[in-house]
Amino acid sequence: MIPRPDQTHDPARRAWLDTANADGTDFPVQNLPFGVMARVGGEARVAVAIGDRALDLRAAIDDGHLAGLPDETVRACRAPRLNPLMSLGHAAWLPLRHALSDLLRVDGPGPRPAPALLPKQAEVQWLLPAEIGDYTDFYASVHHATNVGRMFRPDNPLLPNYKWVPIGYHGRASSVVVSGTPVRRPLGQVKDDGAEVPSFGPTRRLDYEVELGCYVGPGNPLGTPVPIGEAADQLFGFCLLNDWSARDVQAWEYQPLGPFLAKNFASTVSPWVVTSAALAPFRGPVAARAAGDPAPLPYLSDPEDATAGGVGVELEVFLQTEAMRAGGYPPYRLSRSDALDLYWTPAQLLAHHASNGCNLRPGDLLGSGTVSGPGDQARGCLLELTWRGSRPVTLPGGETRRFLEDGDEVILRGSCRRAGSVSIGFGECRGRIVP
Amino acid sequence: MIPRPDQTHDPARRAWLDTANADGTDFPVQNLPFGVMARVGGEARVAVAIGDRALDLRAAIDDGHLAGLPDETVRACRAPRLNPLMSLGHAAWLPLRHALSDLLRVDGPGPRPAPALLPKQAEVQWLLPAEIGDYTDFYASVHHATNVGRMFRPDNPLLPNYKWVPIGYHGRASSVVVSGTPVRRPLGQVKDDGAEVPSFGPTRRLDYEVELGCYVGPGNPLGTPVPIGEAADQLFGFCLLNDWSARDVQAWEYQPLGPFLAKNFASTVSPWVVTSAALAPFRGPVAARAAGDPAPLPYLSDPEDATAGGVGVELEVFLQTEAMRAGGYPPYRLSRSDALDLYWTPAQLLAHHASNGCNLRPGDLLGSGTVSGPGDQARGCLLELTWRGSRPVTLPGGETRRFLEDGDEVILRGSCRRAGSVSIGFGECRGRIVP
Repeated sequence: MIPRPDQTHDPARRAWLDTANADGTDFPVQNLPFGVMARVGGEARVAVAIGDRALDLRAAIDDGHLAGLPDETVRACRAPRLNPLMSLGHAAWLPLRHALSDLLRVDGPGPRPAPALLPKQAEVQWLLPAEIGDYTDFYASVHHATNVGRMFRPDNPLLPNYKWVPIGYHGRASSVVVSGTPVRRPLGQVKDDGAEVPSFGPTRRLDYEVELGCYVGPGNPLGTPVPIGEAADQLFGFCLLNDWSARDVQAWEYQPLGPFLAKNFASTVSPWVVTSAALAPFRGPVAARAAGDPAPLPYLSDPEDATAGGVGVELEVFLQTEAMRAGGYPPYRLSRSDALDLYWTPAQLLAHHASNGCNLRPGDLLGSGTVSGPGDQARGCLLELTWRGSRPVTLPGGETRRFLEDGDEVILRGSCRRAGSVSIGFGECRGRIVP
Repeated sequence: MIPRPDQTHDPARRAWLDTANADGTDFPVQNLPFGVMARVGGEARVAVAIGDRALDLRAAIDDGHLAGLPDETVRACRAPRLNPLMSLGHAAWLPLRHALSDLLRVDGPGPRPAPALLPKQAEVQWLLPAEIGDYTDFYASVHHATNVGRMFRPDNPLLPNYKWVPIGYHGRASSVVVSGTPVRRPLGQVKDDGAEVPSFGPTRRLDYEVELGCYVGPGNPLGTPVPIGEAADQLFGFCLLNDWSARDVQAWEYQPLGPFLAKNFASTVSPWVVTSAALAPFRGPVAARAAGDPAPLPYLSDPEDATAGGVGVELEVFLQTEAMRAGGYPPYRLSRSDALDLYWTPAQLLAHHASNGCNLRPGDLLGSGTVSGPGDQARGCLLELTWRGSRPVTLPGGETRRFLEDGDEVILRGSCRRAGSVSIGFGECRGRIVP
């Protein structure tokens, strides 16, 4: 079941922390995303964002808050990663959401947590939210696939399988890092246009890709597919994901088995995981399916998913270069796209992934693939924005970019807005290139 | 450094256990591979194979054997998986090998372990040797790549990057299973030749691939490549690997991002990990590089690797069908190939993998890709043996096979032989297809 809005989404509900009621905050009491933090010298703790603060769940439980939740939920909230909580499913997630909302809303029933339980988000260290067993990256944006296809096959941009098979491949779990981790420009083997032989050195075509990530919940045993009607129950929550890519390495290595070293040097995720429940007001059909497109095969077809399987998250990409920082220029927005413009829903991606019996485990990460939309301003990577580097982007201060330079910082932001609902956000996903 | 033969390889050295001295045993005292076993109702234990027995390392240590090893080696031997031991490196692995050899050789210095510490291998349950963080599969057999290329591109079988880039892709870690685990025939989306639209159902082109697997040792931090001259230090040991493949699913899904659901429903590994040290007498140059082939780029080039980087393991594939079992026919050998016929050495694969800074972790699994040789009898999968199903294989009893049927069991065996050395083996890697 796709979660439906309930009293935790009530626009009248307000937090007792003022910063959570401020206009434009990512973290009102209607959001309540999860992350993992460590205070100076401290151990990893599951945390919930509220305004500019983060509630330390283990400390809150030890102080007597959140009493009345089942023992296994309490144990999961006291763990150093989100995997135990992810494993429990909606039956545990929803009561926890209600208890957290009650704890943080202005007219909640119980005592309020002491200020020491809510450090400022800016004053703690953020860690990977989960141990990621496997990371899978999809290619769910038909706009991205068509743009990339046009560059390489102008007559035949979209391959014949695209509208039938949710295309995906396995990424590297070990090199998924949290926002703020510097990204070292990778070395790699490339073959320049016109060169006789390949060479090895730092990539000259370093790119980002803005994606929506999704963490798997309870998972499925090996050999047992997840029916499409049950796939939404497997989606714990969503994050921002930057799938850094070395385009010159990719062009030379990717035939016939797909991307490998062009991608696996780093993938950056946001610290916050916005739950499926929090996103309930922002669901809708995916918009990219055109009249005349084939209907999804039965194993990918579900009436609820067809009307509410998409997730309306607006994704923005900002760039700030070394010179822009020195000149006092704020980050410059390169693109804005929406996850509703994907071709496949998260439930379809998950059901397809498990359709052969492949086992998914709590904390596995699924990436949507680059989220591009129909317009020129909605292209989710430099490859598309600069059309393989042929049309450089001009930045404030007069610099241009074909691909990323050392010192460039890429900042992803995500937000959900709908009339009648309180807007929520994903925080940021940052990464700066180092030589 | 590639390990060199020493006194633990001395052909005169014999075990006090008779089955370890028998002709044709895989596990003489010169081998000493590691695995993880569980006795009935018991917990996972690191074990060492000797003849038809397995030494329970934790129990041996608790009984006072192996005293004198460093504390961290002792702790690693008492762990429930091999990852801690893999993390320690040759400096710890070699003294442990010497201590084990001394414990099991007929004229060793100390008291012998009690028989209860050495259950029969056939009477315990075998588990995955390591927690596999990431599984990477390469495509290192030029014979395999050429055969497959000839089927699809007769004029241009080998892609231009093949002799420059060790081609690889990320596989699925969650679905790596140990020998003996049944393999369920996967469902998948396929598009039959001539069909207007794709369909979804059980694969009709289920195949195996015989590979040599390699477990990573200490690993490297993110952003720090492993120089080719240090790559051999990262190779803890080797196993047999069956990379099951659904060819019809693969053909329809793999463009443009490579294999995904065609492979990730199961990959089977042998219980035993034969260490790099045990393989010291069986090293040599890889044989597949032809005159006129380009020299490896400097980051893949090392004089020691060029002369001794290959591993001489003869790999055999056997098939036994339901009807063959009923008729009393033994498993039938489909192919015999040698890992020395690969194009890239294990150290080159590992150095390439880490060349962009991708971090490898203890217990990560690298697969060689299908090991095929130059002859018709050295083709390591049915796709090649039956040339896409066009030339069925005839089995004892008169059955034929284009691809695998339900009830078929595939058995991989590996062995190392060289004049002047005691032969060693890898045991078996088995998997039976269930509907």
